[in-house]
Amino acid sequence: MATDHAQANAWLRQLLAEHSAESLHARLSADHTPSDRRLPLNPRTLERLVERRWQATGNDSDARAQLLDDKTVADMGAYEANIENFIGTVKLPVGLAGPLRVNGLFAQGDYHVPLATSEAALVASYSRGAQLITAVGGCTAMVIDEGVSRAPGFAFDNLRDAGEFVAWALQSLDALRAAGEATTRHGRLRNLRVTIEGNHVYLNFEFSTGEASGQNMVTIATEAICAYVMANAPVTPRYHFVEANHSGDKKASAQSFIGVRGRKVTAEVHIPGEHVRKALHTTPEAMVDYWRMSAMGGVMSGTIGVHGHYANGLAALYIACGQDAACVAESAVGVTRFEQTDTGLYAAVTLPNLMVGTIGGGTSLPSQNACLRLLGLDGPGSAHALAEVAAALSLAGELSIIGALCSGHFSRAHEVLARVRNNT
Amino acid sequence: MATDHAQANAWLRQLLAEHSAESLHARLSADHTPSDRRLPLNPRTLERLVERRWQATGNDSDARAQLLDDKTVADMGAYEANIENFIGTVKLPVGLAGPLRVNGLFAQGDYHVPLATSEAALVASYSRGAQLITAVGGCTAMVIDEGVSRAPGFAFDNLRDAGEFVAWALQSLDALRAAGEATTRHGRLRNLRVTIEGNHVYLNFEFSTGEASGQNMVTIATEAICAYVMANAPVTPRYHFVEANHSGDKKASAQSFIGVRGRKVTAEVHIPGEHVRKALHTTPEAMVDYWRMSAMGGVMSGTIGVHGHYANGLAALYIACGQDAACVAESAVGVTRFEQTDTGLYAAVTLPNLMVGTIGGGTSLPSQNACLRLLGLDGPGSAHALAEVAAALSLAGELSIIGALCSGHFSRAHEVLARVRNNT
Amino acid sequence: MATDHAQANAWLRQLLAEHSAESLHARLSADHTPSDRRLPLNPRTLERLVERRWQATGNDSDARAQLLDDKTVADMGAYEANIENFIGTVKLPVGLAGPLRVNGLFAQGDYHVPLATSEAALVASYSRGAQLITAVGGCTAMVIDEGVSRAPGFAFDNLRDAGEFVAWALQSLDALRAAGEATTRHGRLRNLRVTIEGNHVYLNFEFSTGEASGQNMVTIATEAICAYVMANAPVTPRYHFVEANHSGDKKASAQSFIGVRGRKVTAEVHIPGEHVRKALHTTPEAMVDYWRMSAMGGVMSGTIGVHGHYANGLAALYIACGQDAACVAESAVGVTRFEQTDTGLYAAVTLPNLMVGTIGGGTSLPSQNACLRLLGLDGPGSAHALAEVAAALSLAGELSIIGALCSGHFSRAHEVLARVRNNT
Amino acid sequence: MATDHAQANAWLRQLLAEHSAESLHARLSADHTPSDRRLPLNPRTLERLVERRWQATGNDSDARAQLLDDKTVADMGAYEANIENFIGTVKLPVGLAGPLRVNGLFAQGDYHVPLATSEAALVASYSRGAQLITAVGGCTAMVIDEGVSRAPGFAFDNLRDAGEFVAWALQSLDALRAAGEATTRHGRLRNLRVTIEGNHVYLNFEFSTGEASGQNMVTIATEAICAYVMANAPVTPRYHFVEANHSGDKKASAQSFIGVRGRKVTAEVHIPGEHVRKALHTTPEAMVDYWRMSAMGGVMSGTIGVHGHYANGLAALYIACGQDAACVAESAVGVTRFEQTDTGLYAAVTLPNLMVGTIGGGTSLPSQNACLRLLGLDGPGSAHALAEVAAALSLAGELSIIGALCSGHFSRAHEVLARVRNNT
Repeated sequence: MATDHAQANAWLRQLLAEHSAESLHARLSADHTPSDRRLPLNPRTLERLVERRWQATGNDSDARAQLLDDKTVADMGAYEANIENFIGTVKLPVGLAGPLRVNGLFAQGDYHVPLATSEAALVASYSRGAQLITAVGGCTAMVIDEGVSRAPGFAFDNLRDAGEFVAWALQSLDALRAAGEATTRHGRLRNLRVTIEGNHVYLNFEFSTGEASGQNMVTIATEAICAYVMANAPVTPRYHFVEANHSGDKKASAQSFIGVRGRKVTAEVHIPGEHVRKALHTTPEAMVDYWRMSAMGGVMSGTIGVHGHYANGLAALYIACGQDAACVAESAVGVTRFEQTDTGLYAAVTLPNLMVGTIGGGTSLPSQNACLRLLGLDGPGSAHALAEVAAALSLAGELSIIGALCSGHFSRAHEVLARVRNNT
Repeated sequence: MATDHAQANAWLRQLLAEHSAESLHARLSADHTPSDRRLPLNPRTLERLVERRWQATGNDSDARAQLLDDKTVADMGAYEANIENFIGTVKLPVGLAGPLRVNGLFAQGDYHVPLATSEAALVASYSRGAQLITAVGGCTAMVIDEGVSRAPGFAFDNLRDAGEFVAWALQSLDALRAAGEATTRHGRLRNLRVTIEGNHVYLNFEFSTGEASGQNMVTIATEAICAYVMANAPVTPRYHFVEANHSGDKKASAQSFIGVRGRKVTAEVHIPGEHVRKALHTTPEAMVDYWRMSAMGGVMSGTIGVHGHYANGLAALYIACGQDAACVAESAVGVTRFEQTDTGLYAAVTLPNLMVGTIGGGTSLPSQNACLRLLGLDGPGSAHALAEVAAALSLAGELSIIGALCSGHFSRAHEVLARVRNNT
Repeated sequence: MATDHAQANAWLRQLLAEHSAESLHARLSADHTPSDRRLPLNPRTLERLVERRWQATGNDSDARAQLLDDKTVADMGAYEANIENFIGTVKLPVGLAGPLRVNGLFAQGDYHVPLATSEAALVASYSRGAQLITAVGGCTAMVIDEGVSRAPGFAFDNLRDAGEFVAWALQSLDALRAAGEATTRHGRLRNLRVTIEGNHVYLNFEFSTGEASGQNMVTIATEAICAYVMANAPVTPRYHFVEANHSGDKKASAQSFIGVRGRKVTAEVHIPGEHVRKALHTTPEAMVDYWRMSAMGGVMSGTIGVHGHYANGLAALYIACGQDAACVAESAVGVTRFEQTDTGLYAAVTLPNLMVGTIGGGTSLPSQNACLRLLGLDGPGSAHALAEVAAALSLAGELSIIGALCSGHFSRAHEVLARVRNNT
Repeated sequence: MATDHAQANAWLRQLLAEHSAESLHARLSADHTPSDRRLPLNPRTLERLVERRWQATGNDSDARAQLLDDKTVADMGAYEANIENFIGTVKLPVGLAGPLRVNGLFAQGDYHVPLATSEAALVASYSRGAQLITAVGGCTAMVIDEGVSRAPGFAFDNLRDAGEFVAWALQSLDALRAAGEATTRHGRLRNLRVTIEGNHVYLNFEFSTGEASGQNMVTIATEAICAYVMANAPVTPRYHFVEANHSGDKKASAQSFIGVRGRKVTAEVHIPGEHVRKALHTTPEAMVDYWRMSAMGGVMSGTIGVHGHYANGLAALYIACGQDAACVAESAVGVTRFEQTDTGLYAAVTLPNLMVGTIGGGTSLPSQNACLRLLGLDGPGSAHALAEVAAALSLAGELSIIGALCSGHFSRAHEVLARVRNNT
């Protein structure tokens, strides 16, 4: 995280032009006066508490009108289980991309994909890619693996004890499974992976999570497993934690990329050359030239996998459909591959870390649930299909943006669509 | 992205239990029948087009009521510049975390941080951390670098030509800067970095972007630079692209982690032991034990940097405040460090890739702008402060979640707060 | 792989100071004149061919005397199977580090470790660490996993065919195993991992390799498997390769780090504080301060794992003992952890990618075999022990160098020991 | 570093089949009996000390004959400065690869490259690639950057002090440079990069190192800088280390890959299709198919960069020519790119971390120096040329091995060449 001295110097001069060294010193020093901006202790979503929170913030009436509008007030109860210190709602515009034809193991048919974003041109670009895919017969998509893990960590006096503990845990797998699965109707323990690092042991418990994204489910199951461990292990750990940061939760990791976290999906499409020309105003050859240069560009910038911009579509889909937007940090990894064929262009995406679910989390919030219904993916048996749609959407996005980069329309699209804004 | 054969076999059996091989074959095959779900071509946000889109999707009246409520209809014009194929808005509940005292180069004072999320316990957890920080005098925060880059790529016949091109580009830096800066009032070219990979050249143009997050700004400036290059370079590239995937845009990358993308901020706090005990129900020693084990856990899972869960707070802050939620994929990297001191606990976070701005993007949408106003960061001179608040928030989140993991309250907090939901 | 423009400019000026642009252009251009330096076609180790090679190189008599000394001539036959285009031998000085006490699952006792290096102070430093370990009762070491893989890749027309192929492969595992194991007396197929990336399939076949390091063994076994596949698969690949660069062979990879390649070993030692002070002239506290800062230093430089300098000891051990020195590129990854305890210092290393063997490769070359004999690890049942010694050696090296860095003796040791050289 | 439970269980059963749990427990326990295998304290290379070391090891006369042969005894003095606890020399067979025509900024002409290895087929394979390159006019090679860094770390009470320290350091750059450069005739400070992570500061001092590889040079210079810092900084660090593991020394790192460490070189060649067919028995198309699949294979296994097997050639070259073999761990990273052209195949390699020098280290040892002389790279002005030869050699190796993988000759070559060995 180093900064070149010239750049650091420029920054320093800029700071010192605005403030004296003394002033900077003062700004950076602790201030022990008590705060006069305390919020009510009770975090619940009750009208009087909401009112007190607005008072505490100074009660900007314009802000309040935007966040705490009538519909929000009416729906307040619906948010109770998902938020604390509630003051209202933020509204993101939703646009439809599609139709997006998916020939998947689970997803079947033409989807209108709701995307919530404030980035101009994003929906138009994904929609263009989706329509291209649909025009050529759809994309094939396959969920090829699934699993969400928690990774408790256990500390011992020494490696010998750690080894004995692991031997016991391996031999006790059935009991550990029973302890974990007793806490959940839908979660199933699929795998246990063991890491010994000196006198530390990490146990990665990987579950299938049914229709849920599953982070809470696996946490609760793993806490039950840990209770069993602490009560029964022949060697008692000096200390342990239910999650020792070895599960990849909420961040891009090589481990989840190389294995799976959530659902792993691959999707592909074959596009005849004339469709590339007509829809994207470029050629298969140019798109493959782009892919090659951009794959090396990704490699040379040190990304996990290589792709263009999965995060754009995934963030918009996750927000619209009540998924955990923080999981964009982990989900937006994978590989995109383009190849020239005798008849045109082959394109594939593979995303090993799609954290999606159709129950739990934000999926039952009013407008989010509406988006899932629009997709036709609000009922049982829909989480795998949602993962395949997410991968298909990513494929659509890669095709469209790379098409724009090849035809020279990349910034033009942004310029035109963002024309009424003034952020340059 | 490999799957163990036992796990792959289990998955295969599960698939074949539900479908015959023939049926799977059929599901995965292209379907060339024309789609009957086409959307209107015109992507604009006009009432009649919105109406036609709802018709095209089947017009689920419940869904429509949730997405296209009266306030949304009334505000429709406000979304025109940020979305295509508009059908309504999705509403995320917003809770306040704070007060969060920041003693920054730019941020000063006690902030109520609006967080938009559907993850139960998230706001409560960040708020707890924020209050702890405030109680001990606040955290110190420093923007230490800034810059957003675009990375056009140029292909040549051979390395010799590539070298000549680079020599020219280096000697033409003033002209390139002039071409780029002519397109923007606020963007300034801070650095050019040059990559030669065989006969390919990548030029990373890094800009400071004023109050904006700046992706569009740097795209437009770089397109102007490319036009200058194509008109003037003594060696004409065989082909070029305005972005060759070497800028780190929308994805976690070692390059942005090691350098900067957006704003790089470091924040720290010293917490006396009694505050750790009272607020977090654990000890500095336990938290440092956790940090050590979790740092190794992160390293062993192959993350970029090591930290706990920056994405949770950043996603919630970005969504509430009109930032680009897709940037969570790149922003949620950095390092967290905890250390035991004579008097208690030292904690620091460093995030080199905070993509935030207070103009442009979604910052002027009604409810998002309201959130920025609540923060007091809606005017000029506020983007650096927003970055410092984002880092301080990340520090608060790390303290609180690690406290919960140490005191054994991690899943209990989730269980209690998520009690009315039924996702297990 | 970007270079800052100022640095690039300085480099360019330096080049142009020495050569005109025309001269540089000429130097970089292809030269199609036939070469007059051709070597004999026959690559074998025969005296007349060796003679002809020396003639072809200009027959520098001093060089010849150093490379083709009498002993080398006498031993020439011993090199025949390990080299082509032989001209002599290069001699590396070997020093002993030790005694190094290892309390391992396999390694037991006090080892004198032969290290071949030309880096002054290296042997002294490792020896100091080894003696410290021995003085406190030795280090504990455990091989915790093993496996070497080959990863053939198969290309299909589409994902559907790829899926059918994988289903067949999973169901044919016994036959694939039989085909592979038929080629080897010692190799056993331990695992198959499957990767589907669009219409590409990678099959990672992981073998235990007995006393050998095993790369050739697994290559031959995998080629037999591929022959079986091509003859029997219901879907014939468009093309395939016996190794598609997905095995981690000869390079550091997250996959091998997260899983295993070769042998995975962890080793630890508890050192009373007075031993730290006496042997390393520093304190446990200072060493833990170093560890913390250096762990973050490693993380921030983007290494795979975090450690100090495993490569130094491993390269010297590998060269001395006839291991494949190229494997240092993959073996020198892992994690080092230091922790302060009530009585002193806890230190552990974990190396998941130790590519060692005691038969095959260079292990039967005369002087290399002598080094294995010195270690007492030349017979059957010794490869796991060699891996544990390699990890113990790495632990010794980390202790010693970090001790030197903490006591301020780091460069002094180098200065003193390198005093007769003149490379500054 | 996790192991699947089935694999862990198999391993556990295997251990318990050979040893009882009690026996394993005993093996892993500390043994505090004094060692009876102590070596002489004096580490120098004197005959009587060598004798005493052989006595200490048990004096295996066969081993001694192989390591301490007459020539080694005669040359003993030549090793004094490079080794401690000397007992003899290990001999690696050297083969010539070539001629290898390099059209470089620094390297010019047809090289016979000495390679020291015990891996059968390695020299033959590199030689085949070299001859192919030479036959088509040679490869173009360019050193495009250079620099070796040391990264001292400084700890402060708080971030504010850290900031003040950095401000001082930036303003004192001339004095720091003077302090460092005073220690060296050839080293020049090229850059300082600054990292602030909470209250920790890392200063990366990057030097050009003339003809030396330079690690010792930069260590000594940086120690002098640290002395200046400690004497003059207005804020005294709580503690500091001359190297805080942020320089990439001896390990693959994203930082060195993205920047430079040692010398960064790119090399390319254009090969007409008929040469591919004749020399490699395959087609440009097949080689590009391989490249594509192997590039994705590398990406999916999480390597730093993507390439095939740089380590093979580099390790053999480094050992033959007295380079630091431990540096193979860092040098063997980069990117290989193959592309089909109108006339055949385009191939390029880029290696940003070539740690080579022609003075210092092992370059003056008798046989190593002979190898440098054979290359014609033993005098002043040769280090850059050696780096270009190393890159050209890597290119030759990639061409040859990929050719073998495409033509199906990969394991056959190994089988034939390793035929007299018996390691399967």
